[in-house]
Amino acid sequence: MNTQAVADRLVQLCREGKNMEAIEELYADDVVSTEADGAADPVTHGKEAVAKKSSDWLANVQEFHGGGVSDPIVAGDYFSCRMDFDVTFKERERMQMEEICVFRVSGGKITFEQFFYNLPG
Amino acid sequence: MNTQAVADRLVQLCREGKNMEAIEELYADDVVSTEADGAADPVTHGKEAVAKKSSDWLANVQEFHGGGVSDPIVAGDYFSCRMDFDVTFKERERMQMEEICVFRVSGGKITFEQFFYNLPG
Repeated sequence: MNTQAVADRLVQLCREGKNMEAIEELYADDVVSTEADGAADPVTHGKEAVAKKSSDWLANVQEFHGGGVSDPIVAGDYFSCRMDFDVTFKERERMQMEEICVFRVSGGKITFEQFFYNLPG
Repeated sequence: MNTQAVADRLVQLCREGKNMEAIEELYADDVVSTEADGAADPVTHGKEAVAKKSSDWLANVQEFHGGGVSDPIVAGDYFSCRMDFDVTFKERERMQMEEICVFRVSGGKITFEQFFYNLPG
């Protein structure tokens, strides 16, 4: 799959709430995932660790009120989209989050992702 | 100006070829600009140095055949767009380039930009 096809598939799966399936299907074994500057453990290496980061995040959600993913913008091996969530975490307040996401595709798989957002303050 | 307004204005000025005016009008004095991984001098600090980076790039262009800027995607303080160029550099071959650009807006000014593209190889 080229960058556009991977981007479209990622967006489709995330819109269906199939975030874990997206990682399983689309991510390279050696993917590198980078959170916002200042985040704890900002860089995660490897598909297994990235999947655990996502499943840990999902396990902390008490209620998912809504969210969305924009259509992707594609440029060469990279694509970008906006993701937003409205969630109540366990033992924490309800929170609206929005982020710019950048992905790199190589050999038909996502090998790099980086997220840009303000840390909750 | 909020993030959407800054994003729209940046895209407008770049589409008009007014890249230097965009830096002058929209960039914060302490902006940080990051090129692709592996680029020479990947990080540039300060509006004056960022303006010089752009003017040096433009000075190396022999002929500008075309280019474009996508509409921006906005998420909180960040926005992203695609930029592409078709240029012939002085004493080099014609080259098509495309990149994902991410910007951060704070206090109505661009304080951060990062570019994602493959280095010519």
